[in-house]
Amino acid sequence: MSKFWSPFVKELVPYVPGEQPKLTNLVKLNTNENPYGPSPKALAAMQAELTENLRLYPDPNGERLKRAVADYYHVRPDQVFVGNGSDEVLAHIFHGLFQHGKPLLFPDVTYSFYPVYCGLYGIAYEPIALDDKFQIEMADYARPNGGIIFPNPNAPTGCLLPLEAIERLLQKNPDSVVVVDEAYIDFGGESAVALVDRYPNLLVTQTLSKSRSLAGLRVGLAVGHPDLIEALERIKNSFNSFPLDRIAIAGAAAAFEDRAYFEQTCQQVIASREALTVAMQELGFEVLPSAANFIFARHPQRDAAALAAGLREHGVIVRHFKQGRIEQFLRISIGAPEQNQALIDALKHIG
Amino acid sequence: MSKFWSPFVKELVPYVPGEQPKLTNLVKLNTNENPYGPSPKALAAMQAELTENLRLYPDPNGERLKRAVADYYHVRPDQVFVGNGSDEVLAHIFHGLFQHGKPLLFPDVTYSFYPVYCGLYGIAYEPIALDDKFQIEMADYARPNGGIIFPNPNAPTGCLLPLEAIERLLQKNPDSVVVVDEAYIDFGGESAVALVDRYPNLLVTQTLSKSRSLAGLRVGLAVGHPDLIEALERIKNSFNSFPLDRIAIAGAAAAFEDRAYFEQTCQQVIASREALTVAMQELGFEVLPSAANFIFARHPQRDAAALAAGLREHGVIVRHFKQGRIEQFLRISIGAPEQNQALIDALKHIG
Repeated sequence: MSKFWSPFVKELVPYVPGEQPKLTNLVKLNTNENPYGPSPKALAAMQAELTENLRLYPDPNGERLKRAVADYYHVRPDQVFVGNGSDEVLAHIFHGLFQHGKPLLFPDVTYSFYPVYCGLYGIAYEPIALDDKFQIEMADYARPNGGIIFPNPNAPTGCLLPLEAIERLLQKNPDSVVVVDEAYIDFGGESAVALVDRYPNLLVTQTLSKSRSLAGLRVGLAVGHPDLIEALERIKNSFNSFPLDRIAIAGAAAAFEDRAYFEQTCQQVIASREALTVAMQELGFEVLPSAANFIFARHPQRDAAALAAGLREHGVIVRHFKQGRIEQFLRISIGAPEQNQALIDALKHIG
Repeated sequence: MSKFWSPFVKELVPYVPGEQPKLTNLVKLNTNENPYGPSPKALAAMQAELTENLRLYPDPNGERLKRAVADYYHVRPDQVFVGNGSDEVLAHIFHGLFQHGKPLLFPDVTYSFYPVYCGLYGIAYEPIALDDKFQIEMADYARPNGGIIFPNPNAPTGCLLPLEAIERLLQKNPDSVVVVDEAYIDFGGESAVALVDRYPNLLVTQTLSKSRSLAGLRVGLAVGHPDLIEALERIKNSFNSFPLDRIAIAGAAAAFEDRAYFEQTCQQVIASREALTVAMQELGFEVLPSAANFIFARHPQRDAAALAAGLREHGVIVRHFKQGRIEQFLRISIGAPEQNQALIDALKHIG
């Protein structure tokens, strides 16, 4: 604390991301990275940017990337916003679309950055409890609100909502912005982008960090009505004219264009998730149904914190949240088959 | 305007960056980019990051870059903050250090993003007029304030303040954060980083977009007392855990490490600036004394807007600000010698 800080700074409770260990021989299943590298075409596109032209500013609008996203989803570029990771995109959304004097609603068990953004921008919020199967119960969101946000599939549970449920929520909240945070949608869900032309209150966010294997590049996006996109552009242009560098714009656009590689690697992750789920169940774990690139699992007799510590000793890191309702769960990212096998072997060994 | 916007959004007056034209045959002297490309060692360091490891998140703390900056300036890494361009760093500074209920002070003619940040974060400000030679007059800053910020050299004038003047300002304002925005310091000034160990109220910001030829990569930094840095880290970790991607961290660190290339290219720009200043004076222009990689010039008989339009027709773009006191000036970035010659030739031709 310092007298120089703006007063709200001392009240901030920053987000804590999963550990990025410096040891390279660990089986890293803690931050939902993709086990497969980015598209070779994305790497080639980034390569082509490594010239003396890096002395020049990038396109402040990232048009090449907006076009690639628009083509992929059959929307127009003015329905697309791009930013420095979906976390930056979410920050601008909280700032620009959620300050309405009524509480923002989101699940009690969800992406733990949401309450942090509320602290940063002074937004009141009301956590809505998941049901006893850890599912989002849409009926519980029928209350006055200044906006609604949830991941689909939810994190860290991995549970998916069908589009019909999202559509009913949009219809019941015509005066609120509803944000569907689709960080994990490509591993088994159907994107709500299909609804943006019909619902001007819908905004869909995505990241290139998971299904497009570019966590190291920091690119995220939002798709929705041009009026919502304009709010984000106004904030962005009052914050940082050039959030995406030349390499990121090129690499991200190429990743969206390489549909074959994307689909193949997503299918491999999905197949591995199903195999890992069975293997965990055979060890006695309860595994929530996942449509993401991770599973959320607990064991009726084994303490989750002890399991996480034991796995770490065996060189396998997973994520454990010290949070009431979910403290007996482990969130385990889907690795390559040999990584998943290393996890299973370690679980047997520390059994 | 939309009912979904947070109310302040409609009041925002976003910053307008200099044009990034798509035509490649223009002589582009409008956004103060470096005419020389980045260090070959920086390019090689970025190259080394183009691997499948881009599937992994970067170091959220950018330690490799903080160490490189700390080594360069003989400070400690905990005195260094890094971000996605100095614009992002400045945004966090305005948010985290300038909300004190008293007006922020900055020059009336300066970087036009400052009032935009004030709009974004609801900060009152008081512009302090430059004197009639377009210099910052330190005595005019002796008034109640919630912070002080100015570029050194100032933009778009290019005029430099000596460190003694900055030190007196720091001494007279022990309860205010004083930010020295050193985007252009390497082209002839002495960095105020030399003062950070003695003044806990001093924060110095820099960018890699100018003297280190990496405008296309988006990296900026701040150096100051660890208490000030901590405020920025708290904001950053409540906004975006990973503002710098793997390629940017590596490239920026290598650029700081390659001191020889940096010094050589800065010297070339300085020599070109001196030559261009003489050539402009020979054409009858008044040129303000510049310590930056641009000059700020006006002609007693020729209208600046007409000159800018005429230059554009000849394929040369410079920056003209439609702002009362400076509307008869042109801001001209220092190009390579052949670009500067093209400017002079065009000025003669449209004469």
